[in-house]
Order: sequence, then structure tokens, then C-alpha cells
Amino acid sequence: LSSKYESLDYDVMENELYYERERTHGSLQHLYVSLVRWLLMLSIGCTVGLFAVGLDLAMTHMAEGKYELIKNTITRCLDYGCTCWAFLMWITIDCSLILFAATLAVYAGPAACGSGVPEIKCYLNGVKIPEVVRLKTLIVKSIGVICVVVGGLAGGREGPMIHIGSIIAAGISQGRANSVRFDILKCFPKIAKVFENFRNDKEKRDFVSAGAAAGVSAAFGAPIGGVLFSLEEGASFWNQALTWRIFFASMSSAFVVTVILSAVNDHLGAITYQGLVNFGQFPYENCHIDTWDIFTVIILGIMGGLLGALFNSLSFRLTLFRRKYLNRIRACRIIEAVVVSLISTTISFSAVYFFSDCHSLRTYEESKYAEHHPVQLFCADGEYNALATLIFTTPEESIKKLFHNPKLAYSCLHLVFFFVVYFMLTCWVFGLCVPAGLFVPALLTGATMGRSFGEGLHALFPNSEWVVPGKYAVIGSAAFLGGVSHMTLSLTVILIETTGNTSYGLLIMVTVMIAKWIGSLFQEGIYEASIKLKSIPLLSWEHPETATNLQAKDVMASPVCTFQPVEQVGKIIAVLSHTNHNGFPVVEGQGNNNTHDDHFTYGQYRGFINRSQLIILLKHKVFFKDLRAPYRPPYLPLYYFKTEYPRFPSIDSIHTTVEEDSHFIDLHPYMNRGTYTVTINASYPRIFCLFRALGLRHIVIVNENNEVVGIVTRKDLGRFR
Amino acid sequence: LSSKYESLDYDVMENELYYERERTHGSLQHLYVSLVRWLLMLSIGCTVGLFAVGLDLAMTHMAEGKYELIKNTITRCLDYGCTCWAFLMWITIDCSLILFAATLAVYAGPAACGSGVPEIKCYLNGVKIPEVVRLKTLIVKSIGVICVVVGGLAGGREGPMIHIGSIIAAGISQGRANSVRFDILKCFPKIAKVFENFRNDKEKRDFVSAGAAAGVSAAFGAPIGGVLFSLEEGASFWNQALTWRIFFASMSSAFVVTVILSAVNDHLGAITYQGLVNFGQFPYENCHIDTWDIFTVIILGIMGGLLGALFNSLSFRLTLFRRKYLNRIRACRIIEAVVVSLISTTISFSAVYFFSDCHSLRTYEESKYAEHHPVQLFCADGEYNALATLIFTTPEESIKKLFHNPKLAYSCLHLVFFFVVYFMLTCWVFGLCVPAGLFVPALLTGATMGRSFGEGLHALFPNSEWVVPGKYAVIGSAAFLGGVSHMTLSLTVILIETTGNTSYGLLIMVTVMIAKWIGSLFQEGIYEASIKLKSIPLLSWEHPETATNLQAKDVMASPVCTFQPVEQVGKIIAVLSHTNHNGFPVVEGQGNNNTHDDHFTYGQYRGFINRSQLIILLKHKVFFKDLRAPYRPPYLPLYYFKTEYPRFPSIDSIHTTVEEDSHFIDLHPYMNRGTYTVTINASYPRIFCLFRALGLRHIVIVNENNEVVGIVTRKDLGRFR
Ligand SMILES: Nc1ncnc2c1ncn2[C@@H]1O[C@H](COP(=O)(O)OP(=O)(O)OP(=O)(O)O)[C@@H](O)[C@H]1O
Ligand SMILES: Nc1ncnc2c1ncn2[C@@H]1O[C@H](COP(=O)(O)OP(=O)(O)OP(=O)(O)O)[C@@H](O)[C@H]1O
Ligand SMILES: [Mg+2]
Ligand SMILES: [Mg+2]
Repeated sequence: LSSKYESLDYDVMENELYYERERTHGSLQHLYVSLVRWLLMLSIGCTVGLFAVGLDLAMTHMAEGKYELIKNTITRCLDYGCTCWAFLMWITIDCSLILFAATLAVYAGPAACGSGVPEIKCYLNGVKIPEVVRLKTLIVKSIGVICVVVGGLAGGREGPMIHIGSIIAAGISQGRANSVRFDILKCFPKIAKVFENFRNDKEKRDFVSAGAAAGVSAAFGAPIGGVLFSLEEGASFWNQALTWRIFFASMSSAFVVTVILSAVNDHLGAITYQGLVNFGQFPYENCHIDTWDIFTVIILGIMGGLLGALFNSLSFRLTLFRRKYLNRIRACRIIEAVVVSLISTTISFSAVYFFSDCHSLRTYEESKYAEHHPVQLFCADGEYNALATLIFTTPEESIKKLFHNPKLAYSCLHLVFFFVVYFMLTCWVFGLCVPAGLFVPALLTGATMGRSFGEGLHALFPNSEWVVPGKYAVIGSAAFLGGVSHMTLSLTVILIETTGNTSYGLLIMVTVMIAKWIGSLFQEGIYEASIKLKSIPLLSWEHPETATNLQAKDVMASPVCTFQPVEQVGKIIAVLSHTNHNGFPVVEGQGNNNTHDDHFTYGQYRGFINRSQLIILLKHKVFFKDLRAPYRPPYLPLYYFKTEYPRFPSIDSIHTTVEEDSHFIDLHPYMNRGTYTVTINASYPRIFCLFRALGLRHIVIVNENNEVVGIVTRKDLGRFR
Repeated sequence: LSSKYESLDYDVMENELYYERERTHGSLQHLYVSLVRWLLMLSIGCTVGLFAVGLDLAMTHMAEGKYELIKNTITRCLDYGCTCWAFLMWITIDCSLILFAATLAVYAGPAACGSGVPEIKCYLNGVKIPEVVRLKTLIVKSIGVICVVVGGLAGGREGPMIHIGSIIAAGISQGRANSVRFDILKCFPKIAKVFENFRNDKEKRDFVSAGAAAGVSAAFGAPIGGVLFSLEEGASFWNQALTWRIFFASMSSAFVVTVILSAVNDHLGAITYQGLVNFGQFPYENCHIDTWDIFTVIILGIMGGLLGALFNSLSFRLTLFRRKYLNRIRACRIIEAVVVSLISTTISFSAVYFFSDCHSLRTYEESKYAEHHPVQLFCADGEYNALATLIFTTPEESIKKLFHNPKLAYSCLHLVFFFVVYFMLTCWVFGLCVPAGLFVPALLTGATMGRSFGEGLHALFPNSEWVVPGKYAVIGSAAFLGGVSHMTLSLTVILIETTGNTSYGLLIMVTVMIAKWIGSLFQEGIYEASIKLKSIPLLSWEHPETATNLQAKDVMASPVCTFQPVEQVGKIIAVLSHTNHNGFPVVEGQGNNNTHDDHFTYGQYRGFINRSQLIILLKHKVFFKDLRAPYRPPYLPLYYFKTEYPRFPSIDSIHTTVEEDSHFIDLHPYMNRGTYTVTINASYPRIFCLFRALGLRHIVIVNENNEVVGIVTRKDLGRFR
């Protein structure tokens, strides 16, 4: 496991300072904090909703403008024979956008690469990935995702939207933006005193959960799907109050998106409930479900699971290849992105140019979601190119057409071709260093698979009423994304909310469950796999079976760096400089190495102190010079610890004189007196359960006399998976 | 807090026997257990679905038959002037059904009274309520709920269905039915050995969660709502694998219900997805939402919250009245139920007889959900009695009509009258000793409130297109049930799934959130209040604020009954006979009472032993007579502990000779070596968090030398709320 990742500390720091504050706080203060918490949730929801609508309008208008321009150019060039010009123009637009996005991501914000969903998963699991919730990452992600979507790469906006929602939540809840040196606690100390309560990892995690939920809610118009996404993919310990607050943020986000979209679409006064991604309503009367659909759903589920496993396997090997040959030079990552864009655009142009998937316009006009001007290209008058209608549009629109177009609107062969190409492109784009998500490309790939299955079924049973190709497009998209991501509950709810009908709900559930099962036989979900490839110490939900019989003594680290309750400054500086541990037990008395156990002991356990606390104490020189002196420095207020959160100075920035090195620090008021301990013969599952359920960062191992024997961290537990 | 309630123990008993079994188990065994777990989930889902359909068909056909008979009798009696006969017949039918249900519940199965949702909530929280998951309770609940629904009482079937689902899950997962002396472990020991793994409180709780979810899924046709109900109302620690399994059980249940209902309704071959409760589809084109709806939703939310608080307050006082005057004689509970039935039927008949809420049949024929023969009664030809259409049908059908009937189908005044009456009746029925739920009556009450609000709005704005009374019926039902129960996420999803459209989803979310807020200002949810009235030691999600500054020494119980690792049989029997504690620390060495602390100590902590384990050891006489003897009895196999689960013999049934009293039991192999301990100066929130997150039953308090000082149980923690 990589040592460059630090953990988050979801345990409450219960020391003298904390008790002092709790005693002075009354019932009114608690009520005030609770009210501000709800207000922050509202502002997170509204801000994410506004941000999402702004991004979406930019993307949609630019993409539509680009496609109209290209369509018009190609149509005109058919007469003048300048198709090379149209091709070059298309390539130039796409590649320059992708080049810009990739350069921005690689050089300005590497944390903005990819969708951001694995990073947020790790954050909610308790692993701090550098720069994942920074304002700089937000800016790079936003600009990058616009360029990726407009540039026509096989990537979606939903993953980045989840990441953006989390960054906004982290910024609003902490009341600061380090990049622009803004800190509400410093600018407005009187009214912002409540933010002190939110400046710890646990509160921040809860807000980030809500931001992720608001992001899903805004992107898909699926508030419930957002809450379930946060639950299924993130948080380890849920309670009812937190569920309600996340639901509130998610709902606020959807509400803002709905109201603004209604106003923008000139329906002021009428609120048509829809999110940014809306795959169109299925009228109840058209939802034919037959007994045969039990078998078709099972077949599509198996296909989705197998293809999902294939997708994950190819993605895995591709990432290994990149790591081996491309990651040495940063420019290679940019070149790779541009090459993918080149190939993507070339294939699209070639498909439109060489394949004439012509169908009668009369068929097309039946669809509610028909374009105003279907692309004719090389078709006869009164006909349109069906393959081109999938290419000359955003993936969301393509999915909508696959779901709702009538029978015989597509050729089965061309759908299979589109499926294979888009499958490969999606697989390749996933690991690129550009801000691009996976949801919508995987849904489009699965919709193509399901639609071709439906058209094939229609060829076999022409007169059957229950063969509705659009139905199989919905089921296929659920199966494929389920097989790739191994999401079940949240994926089902998102699809129900984006299609606006629960009629196909049961079919979606069955196929998602089957796809997840089949996919699990071969491979982990794609997010888990990418986390594992980066050696991130993510803890799974349940302990690994291979470690069931291990005990604490097999897991713990020893020797242990400890401190006395009253410790010399020089010793503290030496230990902090020569180790990079983040937590130290505070012990009383001397250890020994000839007890009846075969373990060293380090004195009786009294409490726990964090590196960050020690550095702040050293920075503010909370020393005293004589152990017998009656004078002790007053407590350093909690404020000084909170203003430095979450980035504390390094030990190298602490300078002390030689005389100060012989002074002392009293750790009693600052150490955490109540941290959980386990005995040396506790089992690995028990330690894992305690660690995971309470979101701990350190567990101290003691012997039968409450003497410190070892320490266990996330990496010690993660080693056994 | 009442001492008659015992806790469940969600902690794993990690002793020598457990480790022995884990060592012999291989990877294949784990896989086999996991497969059987999924198969049990499938069978739970299918069984709950079958049970639900059977109950529903019985209830629906009997209720329809009853209402047809009464309608025909009243129609005939209008000509012959024998309305008293019709009235008497109606009363006789209803009261005899309610008398039968109440007698059955009071005398044969008191645990079957009420909806069962509070009891399941307590079970999932960790409190064992006597007989709540027994086969006898299942039978009484099923028969009782049929009688209640057919008898026309203001009670629903959904709460009992959740309870029934939980009982089925508890029975299937344990492979036994004590009432009929069936135990799969005894009948088929070879193939049922896997059930040994499921015979602990933690596994049983997980299966009961799935059963409750399957019950909601079957009752409402809302698989996702079922999972969210289990999450929101029950479990404290969720993981992804459990979510998937509960989702699977929920989905299986809905699938079985859908397939059987489709076959029964003569649509063999066509699966129309619907649950047993289906409030009818809202076509997308008819879902008009206007900007003004922001205000109407807020108004209805406030109304729902206020009326919900009033409902809860009345119900609370009514329960206090019952406890004071009625619970002394059991017959009074039966008489009360019959009196409520009498009043309910009398009011219904009087309303139909005296009010002529006549409307043109032409208006009525527009509705998709019109009856074949609307009741005419005292109306002119070509008219029907609108109030009667709400009375002469099941509540589910009434809700469907309120949701979908066109404008002007009801008189606002009569709707208000119906609302007041049904509000009072629902409030009175809730605490009766009959199996009746609250969901559908509260939804109907809220739908009436919303419908009358909509009709009133229509009177104010006759020409507005956005005033759709059915929309306000949906929002009103959500607001009222949200204000009563304080459910948010699961209630929203259940309503979306039962109305089959997400268009009103955002409005439902906003109104439910507002109603829950307003209701929370005055009162707890009705389930929490009824749990608190019974002094059940339910632990809330977060620790009470008033106890933040308490420490372990303020909370723990002392003196502590402890045992030595090798203890005399006579002492064990004496302690078990003279106390009713369920767990005992195992300590080594002697305690003392003159340490520098002001607390007694009882020796160094070595492990924890449960009362149930000691009783089984005593029952099987696992003794040895001499401390110096090399012979020790072999380990008592895990099988003997598992076959007695969950009801262990009483200490009174253990008989030993005087000689045996001087023998010894070695507790080393049986005690739990790894239970969590906390130090004496740990804070109350920290103990509460550990207790709640891991579902513990006991926490041992130790001092700085790992010596036992006290013990903390659920009741010690619950005392401070
Ligand atoms: N105070 C300590 N004394 C000795 N070893 C320690 C101490 N703290 C951590 N370790 C060990 O050092 C190794 C690496 O530590 P690790 O980086 O996981 O700790 P950390 O930095 O405190 O926590 P994290 O990185 O998860 O935030 C682990 O094996 C861990 O058990
Ligand atoms: N071994 C013990 N020695 C002394 N007091 C105990 C012991 N076990 C429990 N108590 C105390 O007795 C009181 C009532 O115990 P309680 O009924 O809660 O325990 P229990 O029966 O073991 O657990 P539960 O009833 O929750 O299943 C509590 O204050 C508790 O702390
Ligand atoms: Mg580290
Ligand atoms: Mg007890």
C-alpha cells in the first residue's frame, strides 16, 4: 500500500479543551449549530444546482452549435466535394478542445483527472487524497468537462458533477477557500464562530456526502438516487438525522435545477420536473411487459455482466500499460488524450461517410424526440441517416433516441458496429487524464446493446406486441452500467428517476442484480479496481476472510513511538522530525522488555495525541521551563487548532532555540483521553469492525495491564486484503 | 425504563469454540454459507410475496362482496323502507368481524396488536420484545388484519404486512418454528449444518430487515421503498453487501406479487407491474406543475405537519387514558374495539343517509378509475352520491379516486366532513388491540385534506389549468403521513412507486420535509412516541445532548457480579439464581476497595460470559471435580449452544447435586475474549457511539490497570434521554 496517502480522523477529539467548550455551550448553542447546519445544506444544494445548470447550459449550447456547424458543413460539402475540409474542421475543433482540457488537467490540476468518483469514494471511506477537494480542482474540472463533452470524447459529465458537488460542499461547510486565502473564521470571527464546530474530519465528511448527493441529484434530476449513491458508494455509518440532511441538500439541488430550467426554456410559470439528464418519459400505456420478458431480462443481465467484466478487464490492462510506458513523461498523457480524440473523430466521420443507414422519415416522425432536421447525407430524399443521428449529438440525446424511437428506426448491424466502437472508446477514455465520467457513456453503450437486441428480437417476432426495442434499450443500459460499476440500488433509482416511470422498475432491478452478480464472478467494479491499482488503502465493507484467524499481535506495528504526559520539547521535535507518524500514545511509567509476554511494553496508556496538535503547540510555544514550577501556561484555545485545519504546518517550519529544547509541554489538556483500545489477543475482525464502523485512524493495542504494546492504522489493516 | 425487555446481542461471540470452527472452515465453506444466505433471501422474498397476495385477494374479495351486499341491500331498502334492516346488517357484519379479531388478538396473541412497525423498529434497534416474531403472532396477525380490513375499521394492511414479513424472515432464516416443534437442525442435521451460522442475533436481525423490506415491497409494490424503510426505520449499521441482499429480497417479493396478480387478473402473458396498493398512474401529460405550486406545497406541508402533530397528541392522550382506565380488565380492550366499530359504521351509514353529495354521472365517467355502478341512493337519475363512493369501498380505492377523479367530482364541504371523521377514527383505531396499520388511513386522511384544498383552490381560480385537485390529494397525503410518522425518504419513494410517476416527486419531497419539520417542533413521530410510552429502552440515533458531559463512572452500574475463569458450580448457580443479569465479566485476581480511585475493583479483565452460555454448561454438566486434576472435560460443541438459540432454559430448570455444587467449570474456552472495554473516564457520547454503532449489549468499564470497575447496558444509557 502506498505511504503517500494519509487517513482522515472521524473520531471526536475529546480532551480538556473540548469538555471546556461543551460545558460553556448551552442548549441554545446546540440549536444554533443545528440550524446553521441545515442552512449550509440548503446553500450547498442551491450552489451545486446553480453550478450544474450553468455548466450544462454551456455544454449543451456549445455542443449543439458544434454539431449544427459540422452537419451544415458536411451537407454543403456533399455538393462541392470538400469533405476533407469538413473532416479537418471537425478534427481541429475536437482535438484543440481535448488538448486544452488535457493540458489543463495534467499541468494545473492532476486531481481533476478522471471522473472523481473513486476519489470521493476514498474520501468518504476515510482516505485523504491530495488536492481532491480544492478550489483549483473545481475550476480545472469545470472547464475540462465542458471541453471534453463539447469535444465529443466518449465521456460523461455526471462523474465530474459528483466531484464538483463534493468540492463545493467542502468549501461552503468549512467557510474557506485556501487558494484565494479566504477564511471566514478570520474575516468575520464573531458571526463565524459556529464554523469552529464544522472544522473536523467527521463534519466535513458529512457535508461532502451531501455535496456528492446534490451532484447526482443535479446531474440526473434524481434526488433520491443522489442519497442512495452517497449511501451505497460512500458513508460507513449512517444515522437518520444525516440521511434527512443529505436528502434536503439533494432536494434543494434538484429544485434549483428544475426552476431554472423551466425559466430558461420559456415556461415561466410552469415547472416541468426534469433534471439535466432526462431520458424522456415512457407513457404508461406503451409500457408492455410480457412473461417472456423474464427471459429477455435474464439474457440482457448476463450479457451486461459479461461485457461489463470484459470492459473492466480491458480497462485494467490499459491502465497497467499506461503506468508502464506513458506515465514517465507527463506530455505523453496529453498526447494520448489527443490521439484518442483523433481516433474517435476519425471513426465517427468514417462511419457517417461510409455507412448509409437510411430509413424513411415517416417512421422517424412518429417519435416524440425526433430532431427538427434529421441528417440526410447520402440517403435519398425523404430518408435520414440513423447512424448519423447517434453521432451528431450529445450522448444524452442519443440515449433518449434509442429509448424512444419506434421500431425499425435503426439497423441491427449498424447498432452492433456503433456498440463495438463506443465500447472501445469508452474503455479507452476512462483512464485518460481529462475530467470525464463513465455513467452516460456506459449507459449509451448498454442502450445500443439493448436496442440491437430488441431490433433482433423484432426481426424474429415481427408481430409480437411485447417486443418494444426501446424497452430493451433501457434494460441494456442498466445491465451494462451495472456490470461495469456493480452499483445496484442507486443505479436502479437513477434510471427510474431519469425515465420518469416505475413501470420498467422491476425489470431494471432484475437485470441490474444479474449483471452485478455475473460481473462480480470475474472482476471487481471499475471504481474499486482503479482504487486498488493506485494502492489506496481503502477499507472494504467487511474484513477479508483470509485474516479471520489473525489477532492484534499479528497486525500491530511495533515498536511504538510514545510520549510521556509531560514531555521535553526537544524529544517531541526529534520524534516528529525522524518519523512521519501522525499519532502517538501518551503513556505513564516506563516500559520493559522482559514481561511474560514476548512483546515490549511502553508504559500504561493515558491518552492519545496527534501530530497536528503537537505542531500547533510547538508553533505557539506552549512551553514551561521547570517541572517543579507552579506556573503552567494557560490552555491554548481551541480556536488555534481550528484555524489551521485541515493543513497544518510542517515540523520543518518549527524553529526553537537550544534553551527552549529543554523546556516541557504538558500534554494532559490536549490529549484524547477516551480513544478506543483493544487488547493484544483481540481478533482482526473485531479490530476491523471497530475501525470501520467508527471511522477510526489509530487504535492502540494494550496488554492485560493496560500497557501500550502496539498501534494499528488503516494500512496495517489494509495489508491483508 | 421497563426491566421486562431484554436486549439482543449483535456482537460476535469470539471464543475458543468460534476460533476452532473458523480454523476448520475453508474458503469453500464460506462460499457455501454466502450462497445459502442469498437463497434464503430469495425464499423470504417469495414467501412474503405469496403471503401478501393471498391475504390481499382474501381481503379484497371479501370487502368487495360485503360492500356490494350492503349497497344492494340499501338500494333495495330505499324502495321498501327497511333501512333499519340494512343498517343492522351492516353493523352486525362489521362488529362481529372486529369482535373476532379483537378477541383473537387479546387472548391468543397480544404481540399481534397494533401495526407491528414499532415492534420491528425495536427489534432492529436491538430490543427483544416478547413473542414479536412467533408463528402464533403471524397467524393471529393474518386473520386479524383480514377481519379489520373487511370489517371497515380505519386501519390499513401495510403495517401488519411489514410485521408478517419480519416473522416469515425470522422463521425461514432460523430454520425452525417453535410453536410446532420444528427445528431443521434436529430433523436434518447433515444438510442443515449451515443454519448454525445464522443462529445468532446479528444474522437474524439482517434477515428480519430483509423481511420488513419485503413486506413493504409486497404491500405497496415498492421494492426500493422497502429497502429505504428498513434503512430509515431500522438498522444502525449498514454495509453494501447487506444492502444488496435486502434489495434482492425486496425485489423477489415484488416480482412474485406482480406475476401472480397478472395471472389472477387474466392477463397471462402480460405483466402489468403493480403492487397490492396501486394508487393509479398519473400520465405525464396531465402533470401540470406551476410556479404557484411552491406556495401550495408549503401550505399543505405546514397543514400536514400541524395536523400530524395534533394527531400524535390526541393519540398520546388516548393511550394514557387507556392505560389508566382500560388496561386493567382485558375484556375492556375488546369492548373498546367493538365500540369503535359501532361508531364507525353508524357514522358511515348516517353520512350516506343524510348527505346527498350528488354529482352528474357524466363528470364521473371521465375518470379512468370509475366504478361500474356508482351508488345513486337519494340522488336523481344520472347522478351519483360522491360521499358514498368514498365509504362503500376499501381505503385504497378511495385514495385512488381522490387522486384521479376529475374536478368538481366532490363537494368541498363533504370532503372536510369526511376528513374530520376519518381523522378521529384513525386516531382512535391506532391504539386498539387489533392488527391494523396506519399508513393507508393516514394517506386517505391526507388525501381528503389535499383534495378539499384543491377543490377550494378550484373555486377560487376556476379557469386555471394548473389547479389539479388530484395533485393536491397526492401532496396532502404525503404531508399528513409525513407529519404523523416523520418518515421522509422512504415515504417519498413509496408514494412515487405507488403512483408510478416521478413528476410529482419533487413536490412530494418538499411537502414531506416541511411536514416533518413542523411536526417535529411539537411532537415526536407516532412510532417513537408509542415506543416511549411503553418504556422500551430504544436507543436513538444520537446521544442526548444533556448527557454530553457525563463520564463512564456516572453511567455504569456497580457493584459488578463477576466470575473467575475457573469458577465453582455452586457460586454460578447462586449468582444466576439471585440476579437476572445476562452477562458477567470474567476476572482474574482479587478486587479491592482501597485504591486511589474511589471505586471498587474486581480483578483484571479476562473475558465475558453470557448467562445463556452458563446455563447450557450447567445443563450439560461440563464439570470437573479437582482443580489439580489433569482431566478436564472436552469442549462442549458449538452445536449445543446453537440448538437452544434463542430461548434458553431457565436457571430454575437446572438441578445439581450437593456434590456437583463443589465441582468446577472452566470458562476459558467459552468466554468472549475480545469484547470492547472503555476506561472509567471515557465520555458518555463515546460509550453511546460504540454501543450504537456496533449494536452491543454490554460494555465493561475498566480502570487504568485493566481492572473491572463497572458495567454499562442499554438501560444505563437509555436512562439519560
Ligand atoms: N506512533 C507510532 N509508533 C509506531 N508506529 C506507528 C505509529 N503510528 C503509526 N505507526 C505505524 O507506521 C506504519 C505506517 O503508519 P501510517 O502511515 O499508517 O500511520 P499514520 O500516518 O498515523 O496514519 P495515516 O497515514 O493512515 O493517516 C503503520 O504500520 C503504523 O502502524
Ligand atoms: N454482571 C452485572 N453485574 C452488576 N450489574 C449488572 C450486571 N449486568 C448488568 N448489570 C446492571 O443491572 C442493571 C439492569 O441490567 P440489564 O437488564 O440492563 O442487563 P442485562 O439483562 O444484562 O441486559 P439486557 O436487559 O439489556 O438484555 C443495569 O444497570 C446494568 O448495568
Ligand atoms: Mg501516514
Ligand atoms: Mg435485563
